[in-house]
This record gives sequence, C-alpha cells and structure tokens, in this order.
Amino acid sequence: MSQLKGACIIGQSGGPTSVINASAYGAIKTALDCPDITRVLGALNGIRGVLDDNLIDMGKEDPAELEYMKYTPSSALGSCRYKLKDPDVDDADYKRILEIFKKYDVRYFFYNGGNDSMDTCNKISKYMLKNGYECRVMGIPKTIDNDLAGTDHCPGFASAAKYIATSVMEVYRDCHVYDTGMVTIIECMGRHAGWLTAAAALAGIKGNGPDLVYLPEVDFDMDSFLAKVKAIYEKNNNCIVAVSEGIHDKDGTFIAEYASKDRAKDSFGHAQLGGLAAYLADACKKATGAKVRGIELSLLQRCAAHCASQTDIDESFAAGKAAVENAAAGVTDKMVGYERSYVDGKYNCAIKLFPLDVVANAEKKVPREWINEAGDGVNQGFFDYALPLIQGSTSLKYEDGLPRFVNLKKVKA
Amino acid sequence: MSQLKGACIIGQSGGPTSVINASAYGAIKTALDCPDITRVLGALNGIRGVLDDNLIDMGKEDPAELEYMKYTPSSALGSCRYKLKDPDVDDADYKRILEIFKKYDVRYFFYNGGNDSMDTCNKISKYMLKNGYECRVMGIPKTIDNDLAGTDHCPGFASAAKYIATSVMEVYRDCHVYDTGMVTIIECMGRHAGWLTAAAALAGIKGNGPDLVYLPEVDFDMDSFLAKVKAIYEKNNNCIVAVSEGIHDKDGTFIAEYASKDRAKDSFGHAQLGGLAAYLADACKKATGAKVRGIELSLLQRCAAHCASQTDIDESFAAGKAAVENAAAGVTDKMVGYERSYVDGKYNCAIKLFPLDVVANAEKKVPREWINEAGDGVNQGFFDYALPLIQGSTSLKYEDGLPRFVNLKKVKA
Repeated sequence: MSQLKGACIIGQSGGPTSVINASAYGAIKTALDCPDITRVLGALNGIRGVLDDNLIDMGKEDPAELEYMKYTPSSALGSCRYKLKDPDVDDADYKRILEIFKKYDVRYFFYNGGNDSMDTCNKISKYMLKNGYECRVMGIPKTIDNDLAGTDHCPGFASAAKYIATSVMEVYRDCHVYDTGMVTIIECMGRHAGWLTAAAALAGIKGNGPDLVYLPEVDFDMDSFLAKVKAIYEKNNNCIVAVSEGIHDKDGTFIAEYASKDRAKDSFGHAQLGGLAAYLADACKKATGAKVRGIELSLLQRCAAHCASQTDIDESFAAGKAAVENAAAGVTDKMVGYERSYVDGKYNCAIKLFPLDVVANAEKKVPREWINEAGDGVNQGFFDYALPLIQGSTSLKYEDGLPRFVNLKKVKA
Repeated sequence: MSQLKGACIIGQSGGPTSVINASAYGAIKTALDCPDITRVLGALNGIRGVLDDNLIDMGKEDPAELEYMKYTPSSALGSCRYKLKDPDVDDADYKRILEIFKKYDVRYFFYNGGNDSMDTCNKISKYMLKNGYECRVMGIPKTIDNDLAGTDHCPGFASAAKYIATSVMEVYRDCHVYDTGMVTIIECMGRHAGWLTAAAALAGIKGNGPDLVYLPEVDFDMDSFLAKVKAIYEKNNNCIVAVSEGIHDKDGTFIAEYASKDRAKDSFGHAQLGGLAAYLADACKKATGAKVRGIELSLLQRCAAHCASQTDIDESFAAGKAAVENAAAGVTDKMVGYERSYVDGKYNCAIKLFPLDVVANAEKKVPREWINEAGDGVNQGFFDYALPLIQGSTSLKYEDGLPRFVNLKKVKA
C-alpha cells in the first residue's frame, strides 16, 4: 500500500439514474474526509469538464446541502455522452487530460457512469500508466439498464425497477376498473437487455402484473404476440403487456424501427428508439377491436427518485465510498461492483472490484433460464434476484409538499 | 331530523383517481358503524352493479383489509361509464333501480364519481322523490380534472397534481444533465380544464419547472408556441413545455386532432403513431433542430397512489364520511364538497354540501386571472390555491418492497 497525496476529480457520465448522485456523494464525502486527498474537484459534464478545465471545488459546498445529493435524481455535476477516441489513433484528448491532471496535481480520478464511461475510465487509466503519470483511476458504475458485466447488479437498476413495478401495479388497477375491456401496452427502457421490462413482472407477485412480458433476449414475433393478446383479451376482457424498447424480430430489426420514420443515430451510433407502445397498441386494436392504450415510461423511469429503493440508495452510496477508500489504499484500474451472498437466507451485498478492461463495453443480459419457455414472461429465478434489491422506500425529504433536491453552488476551481 | 332505517348502496363511477377509494372507505366505514344503516352493499361497476343486481356485502370484508382502500388507487368496487337516460324519455333503468332498492330495502345511496356521476345521482334522487320512495341520495365527488362546480377543489386532484409536479421536477433534472440541448414536451390530462397542466408549474417553485405551460383555457397558436420554444432553446440550450391534452386553436379544434390527421405513412406503410406530445415534439424538432422528447403522463398521473398527497387522502376520506353522516342526519340530494378558509393564515378545509342539480354537468375552469397575460404560464394565484392541497406524503404501506393495495373478498349480497 503506497501513499499517494494529491487532488481528486469526480465526474459523472451517461444517462441519469435516480441514485447516481448517491454514488457521487459517497465518493465526494469520503474524499473530503480522506487525509491523502488534498482537494476534491467535480468535473462539470463528465470528461468534458476535464477537457474544458470546467471544474468545481466540492470543498466549497455546504456539507448539509451536499447530503441532499443522496436523494436527488440525475447527475448533479452534469453528464456528457462524449466518447474518447482510441489513443492509438488520436491522443489529443488524453494529452489534454494529462495536462489538467498535472495542473491540479490530480492523483485520483473517479468516473461515475455506465458502459461507455467504464470504457472512458479504462482508456484514461491505461494512458496514464503508459505515460508514467501516477494516478489511481476507479469506475463507479450506474445504469438503470443493469447490463454491466461482472457486478451482480448495477446501482440505479433497483430504483427504476421499483418504480416500474409500482407503476405497473397502479396501471393494472386502473385498467381493470371498467366493465368494458382494454388492452394496455407498457414500454420500458432497455435496448439490448430486458432487466427493466422484467421488473414490470414483479407487479405480478402482488397479483397486479402484466399478462405478457417481452424482453429483447428473445426474438419477437408479431403474429404470435397478437394471437396471445387476442386469446387473453377474449378470456379476461383485459390484457396488459410489458415490452422492452429493444424487442426485435428474428432478423434483428427493432420492432420500434417499424414504428418510427426517422431513426436518428446518437453519437455512439445507437439507434434512437421510441413510439413502440403506440405502435403495438394500434396493432392490438386492429387484432382485437379492443380499446387500447400505449404507455411509454420514457424518462420517468430513470429519474423517479421519489420512488427509489433505499437499498439501491445505500448500496450506491457504498459503491462511491468504496471507490475512494480502495484508491486511497493503493487500488487502481478497477470498477467497484457488487457481490451477492445470502447469510442465513438473508440477502447480503458486498463490494467487489472488477478490472476495468473486463467490464468496459461488455453487456450482461437476462439469463435465458429466468425467462419462461414461451419467451413471454419471467420466472421465480428473476424474482429471487430482483426482490431483495427493491426493498425499502427512499428517505427523500419534502419541502412545500415537493421533493427537496440538492442545489450546488458550483464554485469554480 | 327524521330517522330512516335501511340498507345502503355505495357505488363508484368514472375514471380512477389515486384516492377515490379513500372516499369510498370513508363512506363504507362510517356506514358500517352507523346504527340506522342495516347493511352496507357495494355496487360492482357503479350503477351497472345496481341494474345487474351485482352487489357485494361490505360487512363481510375484513375491517383491517378494508383500511387498505385508503391507499389503493383506482376504484376497488369497479367503475362504469354507463349514462342513465332522461327518465322522461326512458325510465326502464330507473324502474329497475327502484326494484333493486326495494329488494334490499335500500334507503341510502352514495355515488362516488365525477361530473357524469353527479348527474346520475341527481336523476336517481329526483326519480325516487317523484315516486315517493324514501331514499337519501348523496354524491361523493372525485376527479383528477378538478372541474366540478361549487366545491373549492375535488378529491383526487391534489394527488395527481403532486405526482405531476414531482415528475416534472425529476424530468427537469434529467433533461438538464447533458451539455447538449434538448426540448421536452410533457402532456397532462385535462380536456377542457387545465388544472393538471397548471400543476406542472408547481415544480417551478423549486426552480425545476417548465419554461412554458399551455392550458385549454387559452387558445393555442402553433406559430407563437414554436417561436417561444425557439427563443428559449437558443438562450438556455433547453426548453421544457407542459401542455394540456385539451389545447385547441382559436377555432376550437384540438391540436391533438392535427396530430392524428398529420400521421404520415412510413416506408413500411405503417401509420406514424403518437399523441399530442410526440406531435409537438416533432414540430419543435423541425423548428429548432434540437433533440426532442415527448412524454405523455397518460394513466400514470391518475393512479400514482405511491405519490399521493396525504392531505388529499384525508380530505377524501372525510368527504365519504360526511356523506354518510349527513344522510343519516336527514340530508339528501346533495354533493359533498370542500370549502376553504384560512385560520391564522393556515389552510383549513371544511365540508360543505352542494345541491346535486347545481353541480351536475357544470365545469369549473382555471380562472383567467391565474394564467399569465401571455397565456403560457400560471401565476402566484394558482400556486396559493394548489400548494396547501399537495402537502403530506401518503402513508401507503409496502410489502416485499411493493405497495400493499386492498384485496376485497367481494362476497355477493
């Protein structure tokens, strides 16, 4: 364990979650208390804040105000979707990052984000090592998509899952109220992994769940889907379906592509999806004659801090804290993750470290054995996995009947 | 005060709210405790349950289970949208209702619903009076739309308002996270009255509110809207707009109608789908070139019991309770409503009774003086009105990390 004194930078990246700030707060608070860390800097809008020398001094924030980060959705420091180039092709960004690190004597870099962010983290870590600049780099994961490799689950997933399951229970109650029938399609996020859509099925534990659940892990067949909806509707006068935005046919074409005329690509080359729920609802209307409703959970599912899982908040905080503690103890080039165990049958979550290059750009999907044979639902395997994660309701404070979110001063470094 | 002994029927009608069951529970619990009420019957699916002799015995339910009604969204007894005919034209339904009332010796009828339900209530009340059948009829209002005449506000509005304001705050945080710009359109319910959309503006009290708010009380002009969005987006690199589903142009045509008319066919021959939010988002994309997102709060806003206002729950319960207490005391032909006062500057809500024929089929809109002159926002007048209503978070219990909603046995009478 070698001692390393210097400043640290904490940045956030990728899409927001309800608890990404709980992780950042865990890192910030621990760094502010760490004797080896001389200054705690926040990068505004992730790696862009480093490149643009747009850093704020976290030590200048009111500690009591900072604590509200734990319950504030989205990224308090701002995010970006900027993708660093391969340093072998173009190392301009890396040179600039090194320049900034030297300017502020940055010896610790904590990056809080998803797949792409772990890739950014990995590239920076390897570059610093190659150039002989001592800097400990740690990834702190977040993603509602729950698709990071290695870790048992990802900070942010459980809160989105709790919100989705809760909302599906409520919509179920709403949709079953009339004596006239209805078909409802609920669209959840998840391009390639169906974790969030599977979470909709948790509502079924309370008898208020969807009849059909379609994940991107299984090819989607429109004819089979419509036949099933029709049969369920004719039997129950009602049918609720949860679908992932990423469902695709056997040729790999997203069903959402059929629904959307222009498919703009984002800066990572991902197709922008949307409009799927309305599209499927329309198809169900034609097939059944039923009244239909398409509900897209949209951004709501990734920022519903008012319905966050306290387990998720606590674990996310612990992940941020562990990143700093491990870095201070000499660890570098790792992503903080979770390892699950059961102690006397009781769920337990321990911090485990994963090599950044193993994590970066890998994608963990819902195991096929947790999906039923017909590919239209999930089973007890998934429930056992997900239920411990959604326990406990957020301790979010209210003021004037509205959530009290953090307001940072953002004093420039 | 004349004593009247007999059974009572409680029915629910119209669209669900988060707290309609709190009112029903207030009525059921009070009726079960009332010495003059010999039996408490629940009509399944509103007036249809009476017409079809589909009644359940509320006395057979477990009292502890019944209490969960207070925190369960949607109508626990089921709802309907069945509209009774004018008795002067066709009195078959009324004869049938009288037959059922006589069969069970029903002397109290409580109907829990919105505008149309108060109309149903009024017609039944007048018919019974005309035919010399002594029966006390009371309306217990509910509607997220907040558009019932007489009463200061409607049970159900505040919970939807709290959910909308909370969700808008969260989406605001989400939409402001990137360094790249964005225009977001959030669509709220309310065909003719803009109360719910106005509630989105409450998020602004916390600095996380929409830039523009469009209610159906003011004619909507697309060119002016796009010019404003463009100006705000160019200044702030971001723009959030809350719109009512019922916004219309100066000729009275709903903008949502243009949305369905303008649905272009894509290359697969499928209709381009999406409601008002997607339509306006698309228009904003063309006008600004920004990344856009349309979010329709859909059913979520009327059943989000997990984000209900405890003030709303308590007042809704009190409304149901007052209906039974007043009926037992001899009152009939009235709707229970609220009267607001301020005691030492503190909000106070008292029960007030309104004649059913005054309430039925009238519509209360957002006063023009609470909307700003430009017609794109609300002012302090609305905030002062709405803020007291959204105070307090629901005491909803969780089980397995999920809401614990009521499960009725529904024992047939």
